[in-house]
Amino acid sequence: MSALDLDAVADQVPLLDEDARARASARQDRLTKPLGALGRIEELGSWLAAVQGACPTRALERVRVVVFAGDHGIARAGVSAYPPEVTAQMVANFAAGGAAVNVLARQVGATVRIVDMSVDADLGASAEVGRWKVRRSSGSIDREDAMSRAEAEQAFRAGMEIADLEVDAGADLLVVGDMGIGNTTPSAVLVAALTDNETVAVVGRGTGVDDAGWTRKAAAVRDALRRARPVLGDPIGLLATVGGADLAAMSGFLLQAAVRRTPVLLDGVVVAAAALVAQQVSYRAPRWWAAGHRSTEPAHPLALTQLDLTPLLDLGLRLGEGTGALLAVPLLRSAAAVLSEMATFDEAGVSDRADP
Amino acid sequence: MSALDLDAVADQVPLLDEDARARASARQDRLTKPLGALGRIEELGSWLAAVQGACPTRALERVRVVVFAGDHGIARAGVSAYPPEVTAQMVANFAAGGAAVNVLARQVGATVRIVDMSVDADLGASAEVGRWKVRRSSGSIDREDAMSRAEAEQAFRAGMEIADLEVDAGADLLVVGDMGIGNTTPSAVLVAALTDNETVAVVGRGTGVDDAGWTRKAAAVRDALRRARPVLGDPIGLLATVGGADLAAMSGFLLQAAVRRTPVLLDGVVVAAAALVAQQVSYRAPRWWAAGHRSTEPAHPLALTQLDLTPLLDLGLRLGEGTGALLAVPLLRSAAAVLSEMATFDEAGVSDRADP
Repeated sequence: MSALDLDAVADQVPLLDEDARARASARQDRLTKPLGALGRIEELGSWLAAVQGACPTRALERVRVVVFAGDHGIARAGVSAYPPEVTAQMVANFAAGGAAVNVLARQVGATVRIVDMSVDADLGASAEVGRWKVRRSSGSIDREDAMSRAEAEQAFRAGMEIADLEVDAGADLLVVGDMGIGNTTPSAVLVAALTDNETVAVVGRGTGVDDAGWTRKAAAVRDALRRARPVLGDPIGLLATVGGADLAAMSGFLLQAAVRRTPVLLDGVVVAAAALVAQQVSYRAPRWWAAGHRSTEPAHPLALTQLDLTPLLDLGLRLGEGTGALLAVPLLRSAAAVLSEMATFDEAGVSDRADP
Repeated sequence: MSALDLDAVADQVPLLDEDARARASARQDRLTKPLGALGRIEELGSWLAAVQGACPTRALERVRVVVFAGDHGIARAGVSAYPPEVTAQMVANFAAGGAAVNVLARQVGATVRIVDMSVDADLGASAEVGRWKVRRSSGSIDREDAMSRAEAEQAFRAGMEIADLEVDAGADLLVVGDMGIGNTTPSAVLVAALTDNETVAVVGRGTGVDDAGWTRKAAAVRDALRRARPVLGDPIGLLATVGGADLAAMSGFLLQAAVRRTPVLLDGVVVAAAALVAQQVSYRAPRWWAAGHRSTEPAHPLALTQLDLTPLLDLGLRLGEGTGALLAVPLLRSAAAVLSEMATFDEAGVSDRADP
């Protein structure tokens, strides 16, 4: 396999269709409502038009959630409120349809793909789930690399391939989720490194770690951050040093979705950390994404600000799995419906405002 | 007809089922997610359990939107960006299914009832729409009463009757919306009067009035507020003096929904103003309501704070019609689904956290 050429990937990320956005925006102004009165719903509709290159927009009929699962060596350092075996148990729970992501996906008619990138178990349950598995768990990033450069590249490519598969199968909206005990630790490191923030600004409670656990987590992030600095300008190197196969796959997935002109709803801080790495590769890529929600993890708003994305929801969530993004799917659909279905002033015979 | 006895209505507003809320909350803690990780979605689910007196909760299958339409004499003073005839035109647009409320109701499978309480036209379109009409438009509240006390009582009773009809027909979730050029002016007066705020704190741009219009609106609110003060302790008197038949009907509707143990999603500032009047009648009633969103009208958050309701969405909306509340319906349904469908740690064989 030839070496991964990130510049070539970046070159393939297209610009949005600003002409379609302008047509959508002009149409919003003629719909029977005060100018701009639907606020962010109008912005969302116009963004969707720019993404699809069409106004009115097409309905979002095939929504696919991809949950990237992986374990993290750092979890053994007691940075989480839950034991590491929960990752594999939750993958089984996903397969059985009992997790929050399954419930919320059903609510919006979305289907879920689970990808085991680096769970610390031989799940063996489904060949499809384990098809892209790179390794079991990761190195403890406070003192060793998460994985080799070759593994990081393999995971990144896997994410790209999965995006291609989903788009080829007709997905018109993608949702990215995460599962992995300990995964907010590498995420905090990536966000701190890529937004130039201090450890204390990015370390949160994750699944709900206590004070002693928070202190251990902060120490791990501080040490990993020191290890991250020398490879800051090298996305694959950064993922290998302080990331994880799950994060690397998400970065590749997010980039390739942009290459394929397919909108993505981002979920929580783990996805946002992977998105920051993808943004390093292509500054255009984030324009293809929307932020489903703002989580309570302190690193999340820092990452979203750097991505220039404003979250749609702010409901105090901190679950991951794609749940916050799924809750925002109806807002996107409503934005599309407004643009497609609302009557204009002319059509409805309603008087417009007198001033221009 | 006997005089309206508000104390008797207040006495009929029940308490929520705190035992069902506690059972829901205990169940949330056993579901396969970190404790509290679904944030407000968990709170919403537990609230719904308390409202329904059941855990798990029943699905919200019959969602009904009731839009109360009315004109306001004060609109002739140039307080709006749109001419008063738009109210009647928009009622026709609702009937034709082309307005934002129609589009967003279809998105969540809700159906819409339009009630002409005081539109300044003989709509004649549908006997059902005009069945409760009290009068055409209202007095200009800066210098005369909006309507007589008898008219206010009639409108208030109409709202109660409509709530009864909807609940009897099987509604399990109600959404209240408004339509009426100029209606943010009486709403601002009611909010200022009932939250003890100054004119400048409550006067917003409404549909997008310009600076000169804002100044006229502020003068009208200031003058009306002076007229409101003597009747502050008299809900029907207050509605007659500075409200409108649409607002009076909403107040009655909101109270009777609570009497009938049926949850209501509130929309924007107009509904919130009516809700404040209903809260004067029964301090228990707001517990039966949830706030769909926070609008950009400055009086809205002031009203929501006094109602002790935290909005679910904050999307820069200022349309009314029930649109902001409709956008929040999927959040309520998702909250119910989480409580009903998610697996517990025991069921899924997932390890819970070690600490208690």
